[in-house]
Amino acid sequence: MDLPNNICIVGLGLLGGSYAMGLTRAGCTVSAVDLRAGAIRYALDNGLIAAGTAEDPAPLLEKADAVVLGLYPRALVEWLQKNQGLLKPGALVTDVCGVKGGIVEAVQGFLRPDVEFIASHPMAGREVSGVEYANCEMFRPANFIIVPTEKNTPRGIAFARALAGALGFAHITQLSSAEHDKMIGYVSQLTHAIAVSLMNATDNTHLAEYTGDSFRDLTRIAKINEQLWSELFFANRENLIAEIDQFAASLEGLKQALANGDEAELKRLFVQSARRRSLFDQRQAER
Amino acid sequence: MDLPNNICIVGLGLLGGSYAMGLTRAGCTVSAVDLRAGAIRYALDNGLIAAGTAEDPAPLLEKADAVVLGLYPRALVEWLQKNQGLLKPGALVTDVCGVKGGIVEAVQGFLRPDVEFIASHPMAGREVSGVEYANCEMFRPANFIIVPTEKNTPRGIAFARALAGALGFAHITQLSSAEHDKMIGYVSQLTHAIAVSLMNATDNTHLAEYTGDSFRDLTRIAKINEQLWSELFFANRENLIAEIDQFAASLEGLKQALANGDEAELKRLFVQSARRRSLFDQRQAER
Repeated sequence: MDLPNNICIVGLGLLGGSYAMGLTRAGCTVSAVDLRAGAIRYALDNGLIAAGTAEDPAPLLEKADAVVLGLYPRALVEWLQKNQGLLKPGALVTDVCGVKGGIVEAVQGFLRPDVEFIASHPMAGREVSGVEYANCEMFRPANFIIVPTEKNTPRGIAFARALAGALGFAHITQLSSAEHDKMIGYVSQLTHAIAVSLMNATDNTHLAEYTGDSFRDLTRIAKINEQLWSELFFANRENLIAEIDQFAASLEGLKQALANGDEAELKRLFVQSARRRSLFDQRQAER
Repeated sequence: MDLPNNICIVGLGLLGGSYAMGLTRAGCTVSAVDLRAGAIRYALDNGLIAAGTAEDPAPLLEKADAVVLGLYPRALVEWLQKNQGLLKPGALVTDVCGVKGGIVEAVQGFLRPDVEFIASHPMAGREVSGVEYANCEMFRPANFIIVPTEKNTPRGIAFARALAGALGFAHITQLSSAEHDKMIGYVSQLTHAIAVSLMNATDNTHLAEYTGDSFRDLTRIAKINEQLWSELFFANRENLIAEIDQFAASLEGLKQALANGDEAELKRLFVQSARRRSLFDQRQAER
C-alpha cells in the first residue's frame, strides 16, 4: 500500500513532530493540530508541516486521509470522542501510545464505522519533550509495533506498515494487544520503575562525583514525565505489578544467597545472567 | 611526589595491563608478573612492559620501588602472604580492588613494617577481561579513590596520588574504607545486583527484538565475572544487603501506589526521581 497523501498529526510533541518531519521528507502533505500555537509556528517555520492550527481543526481534518494521534492515552480517547465527527469518511487513524490494553478496545468501541483505528507503537523516545526536539532520525534503529484487533482490516494494517516504512523504522512487527502490553510491562515499564526506585531509594545527589557508567546508565530513564508515565503505568497496572513481583523475588533470591553465605548459588546467578545477556547481544546482532 | 621509576604490576589483566600501558607511556620502567605466560608475551610484544615473567617473580620484585596488585581480593591477600619477603625494602604497594573493608585491614595487619600498603580503587572497567583489551584511555573520564588508614604515611598517599595523576584519571578523591564501601555498595554493587536480577527474573532472550535503549542500558552490566563479583559482594555483604533492602522498599512503595490507584503518590515519586536525576546531571556537568 502507498502511504495516503494527506496526513494530519494531532498533538505536535517530540513524537508527533518527528512523525511530521519524517512524513514531509517522504513526500506527504502533512498538517498538524496542537493546543500550543508556538508548536505549530515552530513546525511551520522549520518546514515540518505544510499547514497547522491551534484553533479549529475541522478544515485540516476534512482533508486528511490519515490521522496520527500524538497524544497521551487519556487525551487521545477524549480527543476522538469530541472530534471524530470531523474526520474524513474512510480516514485511517493511528496513535503512538506505549500501552494498548483499554485504549484500543475503548476507541474501537465508540468510533464511527466508516473510520478505522489501527493501533501502533513506535518504540522510540528521548528524555526531552516538545516539537523543538523533533528528529525523525531517532526512528532508524527503533522498533515499530503494529497492534491489530479483530476489528482491523488488511487496509488498516497495510497503512500502519507503510507509515513505519516511510519513517524508516528498522524493525516492524505485529503483536496482539495482550502480547504487546506484557512485553512492554517487562522491557520498558519495569525498567523505568527500577530506575525511579533506585533514584528514590536514598538521597544520592552527593554521590554524583563517584558514580561510574553503571549508575548513570541505570538511572538515565529516571528523568521521567510524571503525567505520561502515570497514565502508562495505570493503563498496564496488572502486568506491571506482576513484573515488579517477579523481579523483586529474583533480587530477594540474590540477597538470600548473600545472607546465607551461599557462594555457589551467587555464582550460579551471575553465570546465568551473563549467559542470558550474551545470548541477548547475539540475537540483537543477528537482527 | 614524583612517581617511583621502577613499578611492577602483579596480575596482568584488563586493569593491570591498562596500568602498565599508562605507566610506560608516563616514562616509568614497568615490569609485570602473571601466571599466564601468554599475557606476559602479549604485553612485551606490544610494548606495555619492559620486562615480565610467569615464573619466579623475585628478580623483578627486588628492583621494584612500587608494586601494583592487579589481583582479585582473595588472590591479593594470598599473594602478599606468600611473596612479601621478596619486596624491596621501602616499597610502596597498592591495589585495584573494588571493596576495601577486610582487605586493607588484613594486609596492613600482616605486612612487613618496612613496606607500605596504600589502598586505592580505580573506578574504571569494562565487560571484558584480559590484557589483550588493555587501554589506559579508559581512565580519562574516571574516578580514582585513595583509601588511607591510620597506618598510612603522607608518602604512601602522595604515591597513590602521583600514580592516579600519571594514569590520567579525571578525578582523584580520598575516602575512609567505611565511606568507600558504603558508597560502592550503592553506586556499583546495588546496580549490578539489580541488573543481574532483572536478567534472571524471567527468560527474556526472546524479547531481544523488542527492547529499546532502557533495557539494554540496565542490563549491560549483567554480563558479570562470577568469580570477581562474588568475592566483591561477599567482601561488602552488610552494606550491600542494606542497600538492597532500601531499594526493595522503594520499589515496593511504587508498587503500592500503583496497586492502590494512588496517582498523586505515583506522580510524586516520578517528580522526585526526575528532580534528583536532573540535579545529578547538573553536578556531574559542574565537575
